[in-house]
Parts: sequence; structure tokens; C-alpha cells
Amino acid sequence: MWYFDNDYLEGAHPEILKCLTETNLEQTPGYGEDHYCAAAKDKIRTACGCPGADIYFTVGGTQTNALVIDSLLHSYEGVISAQTGHVNAHEAGAIEFTGHKVLSLPHYQGKISAADLSDYLKKFWKDENREHMVFPGMVYISHPTEYGTLYTKDELSALSDLCRAYRIPLYLDGARLGYGLMSRSTDVTLPDIAKYCDVFYIGGTKVGALFGEAVVFTHQNTPAHFTALLKQHGALLAKGRMLGIQFDTLFTNGLYFQISAHAIDMAERLKEMFLKKGYELFMDSPTNQQFIILENDFIQELQKKVSFSYWEPLDGHRSVVRFATSWATTKEQLDALEALI
Amino acid sequence: MWYFDNDYLEGAHPEILKCLTETNLEQTPGYGEDHYCAAAKDKIRTACGCPGADIYFTVGGTQTNALVIDSLLHSYEGVISAQTGHVNAHEAGAIEFTGHKVLSLPHYQGKISAADLSDYLKKFWKDENREHMVFPGMVYISHPTEYGTLYTKDELSALSDLCRAYRIPLYLDGARLGYGLMSRSTDVTLPDIAKYCDVFYIGGTKVGALFGEAVVFTHQNTPAHFTALLKQHGALLAKGRMLGIQFDTLFTNGLYFQISAHAIDMAERLKEMFLKKGYELFMDSPTNQQFIILENDFIQELQKKVSFSYWEPLDGHRSVVRFATSWATTKEQLDALEALI
Amino acid sequence: MWYFDNDYLEGAHPEILKCLTETNLEQTPGYGEDHYCAAAKDKIRTACGCPGADIYFTVGGTQTNALVIDSLLHSYEGVISAQTGHVNAHEAGAIEFTGHKVLSLPHYQGKISAADLSDYLKKFWKDENREHMVFPGMVYISHPTEYGTLYTKDELSALSDLCRAYRIPLYLDGARLGYGLMSRSTDVTLPDIAKYCDVFYIGGTKVGALFGEAVVFTHQNTPAHFTALLKQHGALLAKGRMLGIQFDTLFTNGLYFQISAHAIDMAERLKEMFLKKGYELFMDSPTNQQFIILENDFIQELQKKVSFSYWEPLDGHRSVVRFATSWATTKEQLDALEALI
Amino acid sequence: MWYFDNDYLEGAHPEILKCLTETNLEQTPGYGEDHYCAAAKDKIRTACGCPGADIYFTVGGTQTNALVIDSLLHSYEGVISAQTGHVNAHEAGAIEFTGHKVLSLPHYQGKISAADLSDYLKKFWKDENREHMVFPGMVYISHPTEYGTLYTKDELSALSDLCRAYRIPLYLDGARLGYGLMSRSTDVTLPDIAKYCDVFYIGGTKVGALFGEAVVFTHQNTPAHFTALLKQHGALLAKGRMLGIQFDTLFTNGLYFQISAHAIDMAERLKEMFLKKGYELFMDSPTNQQFIILENDFIQELQKKVSFSYWEPLDGHRSVVRFATSWATTKEQLDALEALI
Repeated sequence: MWYFDNDYLEGAHPEILKCLTETNLEQTPGYGEDHYCAAAKDKIRTACGCPGADIYFTVGGTQTNALVIDSLLHSYEGVISAQTGHVNAHEAGAIEFTGHKVLSLPHYQGKISAADLSDYLKKFWKDENREHMVFPGMVYISHPTEYGTLYTKDELSALSDLCRAYRIPLYLDGARLGYGLMSRSTDVTLPDIAKYCDVFYIGGTKVGALFGEAVVFTHQNTPAHFTALLKQHGALLAKGRMLGIQFDTLFTNGLYFQISAHAIDMAERLKEMFLKKGYELFMDSPTNQQFIILENDFIQELQKKVSFSYWEPLDGHRSVVRFATSWATTKEQLDALEALI
Repeated sequence: MWYFDNDYLEGAHPEILKCLTETNLEQTPGYGEDHYCAAAKDKIRTACGCPGADIYFTVGGTQTNALVIDSLLHSYEGVISAQTGHVNAHEAGAIEFTGHKVLSLPHYQGKISAADLSDYLKKFWKDENREHMVFPGMVYISHPTEYGTLYTKDELSALSDLCRAYRIPLYLDGARLGYGLMSRSTDVTLPDIAKYCDVFYIGGTKVGALFGEAVVFTHQNTPAHFTALLKQHGALLAKGRMLGIQFDTLFTNGLYFQISAHAIDMAERLKEMFLKKGYELFMDSPTNQQFIILENDFIQELQKKVSFSYWEPLDGHRSVVRFATSWATTKEQLDALEALI
Repeated sequence: MWYFDNDYLEGAHPEILKCLTETNLEQTPGYGEDHYCAAAKDKIRTACGCPGADIYFTVGGTQTNALVIDSLLHSYEGVISAQTGHVNAHEAGAIEFTGHKVLSLPHYQGKISAADLSDYLKKFWKDENREHMVFPGMVYISHPTEYGTLYTKDELSALSDLCRAYRIPLYLDGARLGYGLMSRSTDVTLPDIAKYCDVFYIGGTKVGALFGEAVVFTHQNTPAHFTALLKQHGALLAKGRMLGIQFDTLFTNGLYFQISAHAIDMAERLKEMFLKKGYELFMDSPTNQQFIILENDFIQELQKKVSFSYWEPLDGHRSVVRFATSWATTKEQLDALEALI
Repeated sequence: MWYFDNDYLEGAHPEILKCLTETNLEQTPGYGEDHYCAAAKDKIRTACGCPGADIYFTVGGTQTNALVIDSLLHSYEGVISAQTGHVNAHEAGAIEFTGHKVLSLPHYQGKISAADLSDYLKKFWKDENREHMVFPGMVYISHPTEYGTLYTKDELSALSDLCRAYRIPLYLDGARLGYGLMSRSTDVTLPDIAKYCDVFYIGGTKVGALFGEAVVFTHQNTPAHFTALLKQHGALLAKGRMLGIQFDTLFTNGLYFQISAHAIDMAERLKEMFLKKGYELFMDSPTNQQFIILENDFIQELQKKVSFSYWEPLDGHRSVVRFATSWATTKEQLDALEALI
């Protein structure tokens, strides 16, 4: 059985396990106060072209979203997100658990538009009844989105301008950031993200790490006593160096980017395989998630030998399915898939 | 420099890293639905003598405490804890963050007494004004406690009887459980804990794992939709097998108990070292944390070569310090310490 | 200046102030344990045809919604509401403040449809990923809605059937319930509401009281220790008899229904006035809120002499405005308005 | 039967009901935007000698405490209170419900000492582990306290100095403030309170109003969008003028102070009655709550004819009971009591 269900099917890039093993018996202080974390942060600052960034490591995506959003919002504020945003749809209410509403905007293949955002903000601030409403206090986007799509530099810049005009932070969820940055059809670089966003995270869990995300506050805008907030949210890892070692490895010699590029290569080949054989794409995704239209009968047959995600029904006899590649996808896996379709 | 500050200074037991490495490229489902988690749970059930136990893996202690306490309490309830309990003193308000009060009882070297608990519960239920108060909805203890002390089987049984009489769960925080079970002066076994407690966790982070805790619900008393609660609390690890592999390793061939016994051996030798040289103990701890009384001047000198925890001042010229051993403490480290005291 | 902005412009029905004055120096126990509250509850039970109902008095609508919803939901659940529902749009995030998400459905003039609800529930329970989502734990409707519209008995029955099939409570926000029950085009009675809903509240604030709402749990489904929850939510009035006296007055000799019918008479006359003079209705509301289409220029002119609510723009030169009547609206006020339009 | 159980047994001072009745059919805007609220605020500013104060009206004490404390604290902060403080003991966990811990200090007849506070703050800020603890973010005191005791001006000043040195607000719960200000043995005036506190509330519920508290922010330190926070906490009264009219009445011609002084006169006479007949005081309270020691047998007998509060057992055969007077207590009531003791 071959698996294309998602991008967290395997362990970690072997280099990470090697580093963890080599450093295993070294004694270091806990809670991220070790030299591996310090080194990793320096390398990330460099990669972001943002020497003044504050960086914190967390364990997982939902945890990070709840922590960052709760820490930056006032009590009377909510976070704006695409209706399909992970924080709105697939985090079991983790944001509301912290007391904040997710204010949803329409999505265009997972993205929000600056026009809709502008309308929303204008309308809110013109509403005389706004003290009875939830204040928009932050904008959440993901890049790549739930649909694998990417913001262009112009789109990102427009959202950023709006956020700065309204003095609310722009937060980018980069659970799959590597795959976005290495896409063949993006004009957005990591320094661009650091420039346009007030806070974002660089995903490790889905891009080569055992687990871990790196939260980047780009301009001395870290909430006060953020370590206490990490602790309060259950997000402060005792052996914090595990995160430092992993991100240090990923950001040494461009490993994060290399393995992301590999996933993109695999995704592009996968897409071509399907197209060549006459299958139709649900949408032309530029990243590691590929959405294909298959006959329902064929889905059932294929699932006996390959595992992938059922996305949604298309019409009476066809459905959309998702194949994900990752840093770990091999040519052998694709060959095997090709033989079956 | 040698470190005796705590029991999470190193990585993981080498056997764990070996297993992680060997299984690294295997593809498994996420979120703990893999066969490693299943195997680990089976082994833990056996070790607990509790074939009907429900087991969930989490990442860290504070996260686990907040999740378990919030999940089992009703909105109108709080959790009873020793005044020195970790949930009351050192979790940055993580319990209150979930909306619940910690109701504190006096402590005796970190332990609460059944007599105090009984008085508290009786008084509460006799109070005609109790609808204006926080209902005691759970009892939290740790074993070993913050002071390294242990409940006897009789003490545990008495607390358990009270909790069952008042129909509130008894929850045991076992962050250092291995060190408690392998103490030379305990009559409490893992099956005893499973018998007397309604829920407890077996600590991995401080006992040989990179990270991870195993939450055990002992009698089909898992809160409904606990996976959704894990997700909501930011405690659901995407690559859940990391926890399964670690606990599977720890509960294969008694590794968890062996490495805990080693830490106890090291702690006993450390204690004897200090006693032999005429130092005084602050208290006679039966586990891996040793509390020694040292002259303030000597503390300053010793700290140049050895790292340990300052606990509290004793009198004008002496203080209490803490040395912790762990599964990773070596004879060489103790020899080096011995030479300095 | 005449005001038609809303239905809480004046104090209370004079009979209420008379009763408050007459009973003023009587000494009674606090927190709703007095005989006035007991008498009021009996009368409400009778009016609801629901002798087994549990009734609690609260101060205001948002408070009541947050309390009832939070008390009945599990942590992993959210409440389903029309996108325009008061809890979703105009309570400053009071529901999310208690940790719960509002799950929004499309609205049809403020109402949700059983078909949409059924689809939502079916889709949720079929989703294999649902442990990562917010569970639908309750359905919230208002009657009349934000648009003054009413559910028919068949619509209410269909929603109720769905809720019972999925074992989730149906909660009806009756802030303006009197005006709904006395509408000339409703087939829904108070006993119908008690029959179809699991919990609802009878609004006092907007229907003749100084303040106050009566929460009715229809079938011994009051959450445990609800008084403690009232206290915890800041909703337990010390001099609880203020609420008892008001509702006792309102439910003596059908006062609540009489004054509601008066508001409906006034609303119908207001509607006819506008129609007779050739104005267009935005929608044909059967209750005390009337939505009229006016030229923007005329709105500005009219606002110099009459106060009413701006609702929303219709096209380039016309807008929707709202005129509300209430128990206190007089014929003189309508005459004055008629002269101006 | 005569009642001395508490100070909220009756309705309101007759002057308040008269004003409510006279203004009843006037039409005003809702939510406190009316001219009665404005007038009341002006009078309170004058009475406080604090022309720059921001004032908001709320419905009850627990609601006010939760709102003010939650609004002023950061997420990582808790509120310091006497162990006996109302927020710690008798609000059903309303503070924790908002996510914040109550950090308790020892009490001296209900009061905290500046020495204890100083020690606590010093120790906290010296603790290297403080990011794992709850930050002390506010000091809560009540005046009078739960025991009817009062801070002296020196004590208040010392607490205020400490709070300002540590840049945390001092918050005074004045549920019974009138009775404290009119005590015969206080040197603290309302302007003193406005000078020493950052925020406090003037209790209406227990001092002549039907309900209502006036929150005073003394130096432009109102949290941003406090109206939205009021709404979110369920504390924003639709017919806000009810609160304005009541406080306007209470602060016209010194009514609040006169009726408070009357309660003190009654309390002093009550105390003398007991002393003259040879009963012992549990403590010499300077305000409207009197704590008397009675034989248990006599308590049972007396309770057949008079209602009062059982406080706590003293020894095997005697207990402490509480008699409360109020603005409404009459000489006839005291005469009747005197005849029975």
C-alpha cells in the first residue's frame, strides 16, 4: 500500500534524527534556553532577512494558531479568516476556546481578497452599533491555503497595507510554508513574508521535522511575557532543544528549501501523470497538494492499493480527491501510482 | 560543568532514538491512529493490570493537567490540590485559563491528607451558601510530589475512598511516576495506582522520553469526544506515532522501570555522599530529587562547577538546594560531584 | 421628537411600577428564593401549559443567551444559528467569550430552514474528520427573528423533530416573544413553544418590564447547579424578587398578552399608514418591527422630527429603515408620524 | 418575623421608586446613553472630587468584579485578594471563569496588609521561575470587607503606593461603600478612595437601590471599548437609564450618605443593645454588619422570631452570628429585637 493522504505520514528527515542522536546525551537547560534554539533562531532570522525578528518554537499548528491569535487579540476582538481557514473549520473550536470569534470572509480557492477585507473593515467601522459587535482585531491567512493555493506578492502586499491602515496584525499560517516558497509559480519569498506579515509561522511538522513550528514576530511586536503565555497554553516544551535542533538542521545549508523543492517536483510529476492519462484537475494547484477528479467507481478500486484523501463529491458519478506529496515522497511511490491509473 | 538541575537535561533513552530511526520512513496514519500507539497502549494496560483502561498520549505535563482537569470538571467545579501542587503554583495559570479554580489544601511535604480533604468536603456540602462557591469536582495529587515524597498505599486508598464517596474523580499527576514506583521505600505499585485513581498520567518527558505523557482513564470514564478535546487544547500531535513509539519502547521489557530504578540508585548514592560528608538533609526524599542543606558561601563556590537548583533560604547563612538524578545520570557525574563536596 | 427606534425606549408598564412600589418595604430572601418569584413561575407554567417546567429569571438577553448556551453545551460543541442571529452578530462575542463557536446557517428573512439544518447535521455526522471540527450541540432560533418574522407551527415542529432526532436541544430566544404570539398571522401559541423547544426565554425587557427575562426549561432538563452557573455568569440578581414581581404582574390577568397585542395593533396601523401613502415595504413583517423603504433625502428630512433605525442601503437613492412599536406606543405618536409622511 | 440577614432584604429607597415612576414614560436612548446617566455621572464625579473620572453603571457586584478584573488584567496575570475576599470565596468562580487566577493573601479581619503584599510582590519578582507562575496584575480589596472592617487612610495609602510602585491597579470593591464612608470610626472619604484607587465601585444594590453599581475609573484608565466588554460580559442593561435614575437620585442632596448614616446609627444601637445585655462581640465592627457571639441553644430559640445569618461555630456551645442593618432598618425592628434578647 502506498500513501498519499497527507504530508505527515513519515517521521523526520534523516538528518534531523542524526542530529538528535548525536546530541542526545548533552545536558542543556530546558524550555528553549539552550544554544541549539539560539542557533536555529539566528539562522531563521537570516533566512527571513529580518535580523530583528523574535522567534519562538511550538509543537503543532493548532496550538500555535490558538496561542498567537489569543495573545495578540484584545478581549473584544476576533480574527478574520477565510470561511475555509483552518482556524475556522478544522481546529475543533480551539480559537473560540480562548474566547475569540472567528469572523469569516468568502474564499477564492482558499484565499481571501483585499477587496472583501476592505469592505468588511469599512463597514464595521462605519456601523454605529459596533460596540455590540466583535471587533476585527487581526487577519489570518494561510500560505499555502487549505486548497494548496498561494497569494501573489501583490495580493500579500494589498492585505498587508489594509492591516497596517487599520492597525491590526496580519498573521500567516505557514504550516506548509516550504512547499509554498518552492512552488514553481510563486513570486513570494521568505523575506517578503517577513516584510508583509506582522507574525507568521514556519511549519516544521509537515516539512521534514518530527514536529514543531517556528513563530516569527517580525518587528518587536511579541506580546509581553510570551513565555508565560506559552506555558499557560500548554505549548512550552520542557526539552525545548528538540525544537532547536530540528530547526537548526532544517535551516543549515538550505535543507528546508531543498526538501520542499523535492516535494514540489514530486507534485508536479504526479499532476502530469494524471493529465497525461486524461484525468481532469479540480484546480491547478501550484504546491504539494493536488486535487484530481476521478470516477467514483475508480476511486473505490484505486483505494484498494493506494491511500489518498476523499475531498468532496463533484457530481453524481465523480468526486474530487487529494494526493499530497512531501519531502519524503519517492519516485518509486510515483511509479507505483502511475502503473495503477 | 555537571548538571543536576532537573530530570529533563538530556534527550531520550538511546533505545528510543534507535526505534525512531529504524521506523522513520514507515508511513502511518496521523493523530495516534497508528499501530505503534495501539501496541504501546496494550503494554501499558498490561503494566497497569487494567485491561479496560483507555489511554491517550499527550506532549507535556502542563498541557495534560489542563486538558484532563478541564475535560472532567463541570463549569461550576474546581479542582482540589495541595497548595504546593504544580497546577496551583507552576503552570502559569493554565488551569484557570480553562475557566476552573484550583482549591488549595495545606500540604505536608507536598502531600495532602485525607483528614483535611474530608473536612473540606464535609464543610462544603454543609454550607447553605454553596451555590455561591466553587464546587469541589476533582482531587489532584502528584506522586512523587513537588518535594519528591510519595503517598503510601494506605494514604492513596483513603483519598480514593473519599473521592468515591463524594463521587469526584481522583487524578494523579505522574510526571515522575517511574521514580516513585522504583523508590526503595514505597508500597505502591502501578496496578495500585490504576486501582485507586480514576485517571492518572505516566510521565515520559522526565523518565526517558524526548517528550510525552500517557493519560490513563481507568474505568471507561474517558470524557466523550476526548480526541476533539485534545485538538481543541492544542494537544493532538499530528505525527502521533512519535508518542506511540516512545511509550512502546519504554514499556517493552520493563525499560521504564529499569531506567527509573537506575535514577533511584543514583539518588540514593548522592544522598549517602552528602550524609557521609556530614551535610544535613532538608528532608529524607525517597525519590530522585534530593534536598540538601548547604552553607550559602559553599553554594556559590559549588555553582562554579556544578549546576543544581536553589530551593529556598533556610536561615541567615544556609539554604536548601535540590539535586535531581534521572535515567541519564552517570556514575562519573556522581564521582565528579563527590570530589567537590 | 417622537421615537420609534426600538422597543425599550420607556420604563415599565405602570402596573409593574405600582406593584414594585406597593411591595417595596417588604422583607424577602434574596437570589430569587422569595414568594413573588414562586408565584410568577407558577403563572408562567400555567401560561405555557407546562406544569413541569423549571423557570429562572435573568436580567437581560445577551446575558441569558450566553448563560443558557454555555450551560447546555459540552466543551466540544457549538451552537447553530442563523447567520443574522443575535448571538452571531450583535452580542459582542459573548458566546465565544464562554468558549463556544457559533455555527452559522443561511437565513431567510432571519429564519433558518429545517432543510438546511438537516443537511448540516447529516454532513457533519458523515464527515470522518469530525473530531477536528466543532460539534453541533444546540440549535438557536429567535421568534420573532431580527427581521420581525415568525416561524410557523410546521416549521417549528420540523426543527424540533430534527433536534430530537440528533439529541441536541432547540433553544428559542424570545426577547420579543409577546409580539410574536400576538401577531395576527401566527399559528404558534406559548404552549406550542413549550412543546417544541427544550429551553426558551420569555422576554420582559422589550415587552413591558424594566428589565428581565424568564428562562423556561421544559422537561427537567435544567443543567445541574444552575444557580451556581447564574452566579458565575454574573446573572444572579441579589434582590431577585424584582424579577419575580415584574413577571408576576405581567402574567396576571394576561397583561403580557394584552400589551403585546397593543404593540401589534400599533404596528399594523403604522404599516397601513405607510402603504396608504404609497411607500413600499422592504418585507411584510407580522410583528412590531416594520421595515419600510424610503428615499434617502426624505430619511434625512424625517429624522429631524422622528427618530427611527437606519437598517441598510437598498439602492443608490433609497434605503431600508425600521420603525418599532411597543407596549408603550400611543395613537398620538402614530398620528404625529402620519402627519409627517 | 424580623429579618437582619443582610442588607438587600427590601426594595429601594422610596425616593428612587418615585423618580422611576415620574420618568417612566419618557423616551430615551438605551444602553446608558441617556441624560439621566450623564447627570448621575456628573454628580458622582463631584462627590468623588475627581472631575476626570470615567463612570459606568452595572447591575450587580459579582458581575462588576468579573468585568473589571478581566478587563484590566493581561492573560498572564491574576488578581491578589484576601483569602476571605468575595472574589475568592463567594462568586462561584466568576473570576476564574474569565480565565484569571485569584492569588490569595492572609487576611486580618478581612483586610490584607501592605507588609504581606510587599513580601508577595518582592518574592514574585525575584523568582527566576516566574514565567511559570501567575503574574500579580492587580490588587483587589473590599471596603468594608466581608467582616465589616475598614482600611484606614494610612493603610489604603500604603497599598496604593505599593501598587503604583509595581504599576498594577488597586481595585476597591465598594458593595457596601456607603456604610464604610459613614462609619463613626473611619478617616477615609470618597475623594480619598478616588485618590488612592485606580478603579472602584460604589455599591447601589446594598445601599438603597433596586440594583446597580457605579464603576469609577479614576484617571483615564478605562479599558478600550469598555462598552463592548460590558456587552460581552452580559452586563450592559438595555434600559440603562434605570441605573442612571437610581444613582442620580442617590447622589442628589447627599441621599446616599444620609441613608448610609442611618444604617450605621441602627448598627451602633444594635451593638449597644447586645453589649448592654452582656453579650460578647466576636469583633468590634465599625459598619453595618455586627458579629455577635451567642449560645447555640439561644440561637435556635431566637431564630423562631428573628432571622439573621449563622457565621461560624466558636466553640462547643457557642457560635458567631451576623446581624446586618441597612438604609431600611427601622427603630421598631430594633425594639422588637431588643425585647427578645
